[in-house]
Amino acid sequence: MQPYELSIAAAAEAIRARELSPVELVDSVLDRLEQVEPQLQAYVSVGADEARRAAREAEREVAAGRLRGPLHGVPMGLKDLIDVAGAPTTASSRVRTGHHRAEADSTVAARLAAAGAVLLGKTHTHEFAYGLTTPQTRNAWDRGRVAGGSSGGSAVSVAAGAATFALGTDTGGSIRVPSALNGVVGLKPTYGLVPRHGVTSLSWSLDHVGPITRTVEDAALVLSSLVGHDPRDPASLAAPHPHYRPGGATELTGLRIGVPRTYYFDHVQPEVEAAVRLATAELEDLGAQLVEVEIPMTRYVQATQWGLMVPEATAYHERTLRAVPELYGDDVRILLEAGELMPAGDYLRAQRSRTLMQQAWARMLEDVDVIAAPTVPATAVKAHEETITWSDGTVEGVSDAYVRLSAPANITGVPSLSVPVGHDSAGLPIGMQLLGHPLGERVLLRVGHAYEQTRPARPLATTQTTA
Amino acid sequence: MQPYELSIAAAAEAIRARELSPVELVDSVLDRLEQVEPQLQAYVSVGADEARRAAREAEREVAAGRLRGPLHGVPMGLKDLIDVAGAPTTASSRVRTGHHRAEADSTVAARLAAAGAVLLGKTHTHEFAYGLTTPQTRNAWDRGRVAGGSSGGSAVSVAAGAATFALGTDTGGSIRVPSALNGVVGLKPTYGLVPRHGVTSLSWSLDHVGPITRTVEDAALVLSSLVGHDPRDPASLAAPHPHYRPGGATELTGLRIGVPRTYYFDHVQPEVEAAVRLATAELEDLGAQLVEVEIPMTRYVQATQWGLMVPEATAYHERTLRAVPELYGDDVRILLEAGELMPAGDYLRAQRSRTLMQQAWARMLEDVDVIAAPTVPATAVKAHEETITWSDGTVEGVSDAYVRLSAPANITGVPSLSVPVGHDSAGLPIGMQLLGHPLGERVLLRVGHAYEQTRPARPLATTQTTA
Repeated sequence: MQPYELSIAAAAEAIRARELSPVELVDSVLDRLEQVEPQLQAYVSVGADEARRAAREAEREVAAGRLRGPLHGVPMGLKDLIDVAGAPTTASSRVRTGHHRAEADSTVAARLAAAGAVLLGKTHTHEFAYGLTTPQTRNAWDRGRVAGGSSGGSAVSVAAGAATFALGTDTGGSIRVPSALNGVVGLKPTYGLVPRHGVTSLSWSLDHVGPITRTVEDAALVLSSLVGHDPRDPASLAAPHPHYRPGGATELTGLRIGVPRTYYFDHVQPEVEAAVRLATAELEDLGAQLVEVEIPMTRYVQATQWGLMVPEATAYHERTLRAVPELYGDDVRILLEAGELMPAGDYLRAQRSRTLMQQAWARMLEDVDVIAAPTVPATAVKAHEETITWSDGTVEGVSDAYVRLSAPANITGVPSLSVPVGHDSAGLPIGMQLLGHPLGERVLLRVGHAYEQTRPARPLATTQTTA
Repeated sequence: MQPYELSIAAAAEAIRARELSPVELVDSVLDRLEQVEPQLQAYVSVGADEARRAAREAEREVAAGRLRGPLHGVPMGLKDLIDVAGAPTTASSRVRTGHHRAEADSTVAARLAAAGAVLLGKTHTHEFAYGLTTPQTRNAWDRGRVAGGSSGGSAVSVAAGAATFALGTDTGGSIRVPSALNGVVGLKPTYGLVPRHGVTSLSWSLDHVGPITRTVEDAALVLSSLVGHDPRDPASLAAPHPHYRPGGATELTGLRIGVPRTYYFDHVQPEVEAAVRLATAELEDLGAQLVEVEIPMTRYVQATQWGLMVPEATAYHERTLRAVPELYGDDVRILLEAGELMPAGDYLRAQRSRTLMQQAWARMLEDVDVIAAPTVPATAVKAHEETITWSDGTVEGVSDAYVRLSAPANITGVPSLSVPVGHDSAGLPIGMQLLGHPLGERVLLRVGHAYEQTRPARPLATTQTTA
């Protein structure tokens, strides 16, 4: 096994035991990155020299007996909405070309640096995170298919071994969708748990930052470094730091897992449904009790998500939209312009609907510890496909389909962990999301980890090309 | 002294000592009400029989040794936005004529009933609380002048002895403005401290419920019965119950009182300014240290207040505004219709401005315990006067003037206590507001009470008529 294939946990153990040096690890991942990046285009920019310098410094610290923790010397990618002092934050947009060099680290970049992680580079996002495909980047398993978005570069880099972990952001599924489509683990934490100071906003009442990793245990390790109150994010919670890392035990006796009777299995590809139901049965085998749940207020999900996101996104882009509209991609510009036309009443209705959905979900969650559901209803579509046709003849836009099952966790703020649960007959990854109680990350990570232990180790993505 | 003249504290002491019975107290207040109500029109409806029945029940409880607390047997008025089971909640509007009999008590009505308070009736509000004058009701000190609003009926009833205390609501000053204009005490608590379940909303992100009383101590007694988390109000705080009642000591040594250098003394009547500065000097005499403070972001106050209130009010009235627009008063209907035209972007700008103002106020409040300022820049104007002309020739709408100094506490959510500080040369009351830290009610009540002890007991309002 090459160092670039190691999980964070395995790399950390090898570094701790002095069997692997941060320099070897970073060199291995950079070599892999160099090999796969021309096909995948996951990165906006790579700072190989800075990464090697940071790796040498991390190695010196190890030699001096100063080990910062499990991220010490571990190479990562950061979605290019996340400020790193001195580097441009391009948001993968021409609007930011040639300016916007960040003056200071975002809170998450500063915390990861303090934990010893080594930055490889900034990964591609769908322009300003306002889309579900990330057209610059290719799917890690099939170059002819979409990466998913908006954190497409982050998910692809992790899936391909071009980063040991990465950060994404999630406003309507943007961590979980590309994680599912590329066969990696993505965690959207509880709203407010991870501070967003220094991260370019799409829709502040729905935005989250979280880890993308190759194992659930790794997601727990990264999350532990990200949490903690920051008054510079008005939504930041003063939550206590629990111990996130799952233990060795995989017994789930006493745990109640909700299986949605409604919504999450409507208009879902049969292979996706089958894989998720099989995974749910594995959780039952581990001792969990399956409980049918009725997802409330489902017919309000789309209107609420868009009613909040569209005007908030436009408010954020107000000045540049007036000054340089031609620098935006057409898809993003049209959405931003639509936001200018939205009446306050529609936004208020969405805010009120969110409050009611939060209350209704809280009542539903009284009966279960976790809900298991597909992350996305379909695996990765071919690039440039704009719609999905369901078996009943219904036609749905790709973005609408990809956001549909993710949005409830953004609206309600509950945490959601996407874990890989196999591949479809075309070899494309399938994801299952575990949704939990607010601040219930520990339970999600425990369940996801237990499930993962039932499966053989996943290989890295092996890229093919579908015409 | 007649029972109707007693403060809550004095009445409670007399009831506890069996020197006064709830029946005597309620009868006395009802007699006074009957005498003054034809001139003042503070009440929408009076339930004398129910009040006398409740008083007899309270008397039986006293006789049986079951004293519920300081509100036991004390007669009150409730602003007619506050649901009482079985009674209509008219909001002083023709829109509600003939229907809307409340099915259940609002949280505050239920808590006051449990504390033994006796409901006299429902008091007039400016229609749906959307105005600062309450045109149905006359000022308690001068029948030719406005009561102030929107809790005009509540303030006038308390000022005239037609209720021992009352509740009001405050979205842009609606407790404090009529309290100041009628020479009584009004407390707008911290946003979220008093639950609003069952209270008709004007603008949910700015609405507050609070007491109107004749003494600061009484405000503390009523507040103690109102606080406590209620999950049915999404903004309700799970704050601990402090002990609100001020002690006997009036020493203020060590307390820092902020005196605004900006905003609160601009465009203020000279007699109002003089009375407030005199009162501030009295606080200094009691040992407090006066500190000049710079009020931040004052040029955003009006746009933020209206940018939040107008669309939220319209959202609340959406259906009736379409169904029966002709049943609204012209002033209210025009404001509601204006809200339909507001773009989401304006509302979002107001929300963002509020967040920044909250942060800027938090920084300012680090330097002081309390801020002392005029409640309203002018005493009660004559009925039908629509503008105030300032000494520099500036003309300001009456409502704009009355809301101007109140709105910052609604936007930021900080508590504000209005206390009477004398009368102008026309005999009209002047109010000073004490603004504090979030959840700093105890400090406000202590300072207000200390100030009150330096002054002779205030007589009830003695109504005159200005042509």
